[in-house]
Amino acid sequence: MTAYHQMSRQELEKEKSLLDAAYAAFQAKNLKLNMARGKPSVEQSDLSNGMFNCLSSTDYFSEDGVDCRNYGTLDGIPEMKRIFADLLHLSPDEIIVGGNSSLAMMFDNVSSNMSHGVRDGIPWSKQGEVKFLCPSPGYDRHFGICEYFHIQMIPVAMTETGPDMDEVERLVSSDPMIKGIWCVPKYSNPDGIVYSDETVLRMANLKPAASDFRIYWDDAYAIHYLYDKPATILNILRECEKAGNPNMPLIFSSFSKISFAGAGVACIAASRSNIEFIKQRMAMQTIGHDKLNQLRHARFFKDAQGVLDHMAKHAAILRPKFEAVEEALERELAPLQLAHWQNPKGGYFISVYVPEGCAKRVVQLCKEAGVVLTGAGATYPYGNDPHDSNIRVAPSYPSVEELRTAAELFCLCVKLAAAEKILSE
Amino acid sequence: MTAYHQMSRQELEKEKSLLDAAYAAFQAKNLKLNMARGKPSVEQSDLSNGMFNCLSSTDYFSEDGVDCRNYGTLDGIPEMKRIFADLLHLSPDEIIVGGNSSLAMMFDNVSSNMSHGVRDGIPWSKQGEVKFLCPSPGYDRHFGICEYFHIQMIPVAMTETGPDMDEVERLVSSDPMIKGIWCVPKYSNPDGIVYSDETVLRMANLKPAASDFRIYWDDAYAIHYLYDKPATILNILRECEKAGNPNMPLIFSSFSKISFAGAGVACIAASRSNIEFIKQRMAMQTIGHDKLNQLRHARFFKDAQGVLDHMAKHAAILRPKFEAVEEALERELAPLQLAHWQNPKGGYFISVYVPEGCAKRVVQLCKEAGVVLTGAGATYPYGNDPHDSNIRVAPSYPSVEELRTAAELFCLCVKLAAAEKILSE
Repeated sequence: MTAYHQMSRQELEKEKSLLDAAYAAFQAKNLKLNMARGKPSVEQSDLSNGMFNCLSSTDYFSEDGVDCRNYGTLDGIPEMKRIFADLLHLSPDEIIVGGNSSLAMMFDNVSSNMSHGVRDGIPWSKQGEVKFLCPSPGYDRHFGICEYFHIQMIPVAMTETGPDMDEVERLVSSDPMIKGIWCVPKYSNPDGIVYSDETVLRMANLKPAASDFRIYWDDAYAIHYLYDKPATILNILRECEKAGNPNMPLIFSSFSKISFAGAGVACIAASRSNIEFIKQRMAMQTIGHDKLNQLRHARFFKDAQGVLDHMAKHAAILRPKFEAVEEALERELAPLQLAHWQNPKGGYFISVYVPEGCAKRVVQLCKEAGVVLTGAGATYPYGNDPHDSNIRVAPSYPSVEELRTAAELFCLCVKLAAAEKILSE
Repeated sequence: MTAYHQMSRQELEKEKSLLDAAYAAFQAKNLKLNMARGKPSVEQSDLSNGMFNCLSSTDYFSEDGVDCRNYGTLDGIPEMKRIFADLLHLSPDEIIVGGNSSLAMMFDNVSSNMSHGVRDGIPWSKQGEVKFLCPSPGYDRHFGICEYFHIQMIPVAMTETGPDMDEVERLVSSDPMIKGIWCVPKYSNPDGIVYSDETVLRMANLKPAASDFRIYWDDAYAIHYLYDKPATILNILRECEKAGNPNMPLIFSSFSKISFAGAGVACIAASRSNIEFIKQRMAMQTIGHDKLNQLRHARFFKDAQGVLDHMAKHAAILRPKFEAVEEALERELAPLQLAHWQNPKGGYFISVYVPEGCAKRVVQLCKEAGVVLTGAGATYPYGNDPHDSNIRVAPSYPSVEELRTAAELFCLCVKLAAAEKILSE
């Protein structure tokens, strides 16, 4: 029960006229801020400017003596494989280094399984209507891949410890057309949830009806912490091995939010059997990805510890931004019980649940006052938030000052939308 | 009729014992040379070393003000689009700039057409057994893409002016399951053939039985000339427009053999309608390709003229290498009429036709004396050269000295294989 519900109609109308006046004042400021995507700020990009000059006309060899300017090396230079392996607590031969986009690697993997099937499998597209489990709210671009391939998306609720595993187990074990699940196991997009050990264990021990079921484990925020140090979770590949499901997980990660968002390096990690299978396709696709950019990363970061040290600098920039938003939410919305949210310990988003039926209106009000948010519903399959409640706030790009203003506007819009809704009932 | 055929058995046996001795002498040299792939030499890579330091911590904006370090810009920065457009005599809005591999873009386009069809088309894979015309000899990696997607390959003979267009017209107009043709229009792989105006015109004016037929126009060697200046051919997109087939051609090109083979920039060029359609898929695949590498190229080459000037330096390095091989062929094999070949004016290969049934044996003999050539048959669909005659020689990587030795060995092996064959008949 919100405080607004406890007001008389007259009180609420008075409150709304105050809100309207405040909103008009915001509109007069001609704000122009974008909090739609998890885009690193200029200051964060500056952290990696050393990459511009860390190679030279005498330094372009990988440690195995390969001239990185030329053709060759399908699956990545050894030093870059090692960095990914150390960060993901895996072995270098469980890693394929790709181009600059882990999304492209996920898309390509789904495409491959649709047209050719998993190793020793029948093409998914030849088996009937393919379905994926989509823990929701989740990452809109995962859902986009499913839509593109006409894969039916089945939403599964997120809990504070990860996807609702009762539901995941029930569905996966009963329907052989469920071929995949999208997971962002650490600092999930958008809720910032870290999967518990129980969640990872239950995921690894799934008994899928489909022998060609795959877990798409998008470790996008593996080391993207805001406080103290990255959360540690159980190793999905090792747990799947123990459970007799070594080929079930496909792990993706990238440097897009570590080095340069537009010029990072991505990877896929999996069982050696899966790696071998993926490399067969890659050998038809390309002579190899950009090794100079891999070497640039290896020179700049040196090793996994170098990457972790670098992430502390990102955290120092991001933390006050998250806190500026959280402070406004706490101050403006908590007393009125108009919203709830996680205070994430990492990742790129604050996921706010506004009163049912109000998310679209809040996003619209913010937009009309100059602050662009992620479209309401984008965090759900087919853009359909059944409660019209979740809004993903991306605080990384604007300055702290701008965020204070934007967050104040956001809270105002939540109040306004809530008041409008109650008054219209 | 070769000179060897005119010898008596005794004369030929004597000749063969001389060849055997010469071959043994080569084996004693312990050569270790690789002429298998069109790989630029170290000196060629050195030409682009200026790319290592042409960006800096104060220079990372594209001309439209985009911070190339960050996310954004799906289809390429304006300056890189313009360079491609000027080189290909097209408009920037007919260009999508990709990652480092044009092969990856071709693979992805075929994959897209298989699973989703061309714009307003039915997925190729849903129409029956897809077929491609494969002018042969041709590029093994084109054929590899077909094999991967289970596309039936129909060889079409190459002539000195391009594919046998009588055959292409006959096949394309009669079979609606023929969905594509692979073309390398300039300095073709491996023959170095430049398509004549008539060939391009007839290609553009095809009347395919399949409304979703596509010409894969791999302009891999668009400006990769050895003498004077690049050959000019008719503009396939403009000719297709005139013929009422604007959406038929898909043009691919890349900087792999201009800047760095391992870290270049590729593109696809096509009608605006095709570009729009491809971008719809790209928007699901990636946030964008590596813009910093695009900017690096734009800064280093400045404009299309800068690229053409740069190609003159490549030509100066490559020309003596091609000539070293051609001299040996002319000196050793022409008098005996044991082989024929083109003396290409550009590209990366010399395509030698040895006596029927001898190509595999020549490649084997060379290998056993330390010189690796492209596998015999690789230039034909399914690795099947019906005459076992064509050998692709790639002279770019070794030094001129090494090439003289390797070419001498090659000629010796052709003689030896020919002598063996006649003696075994």
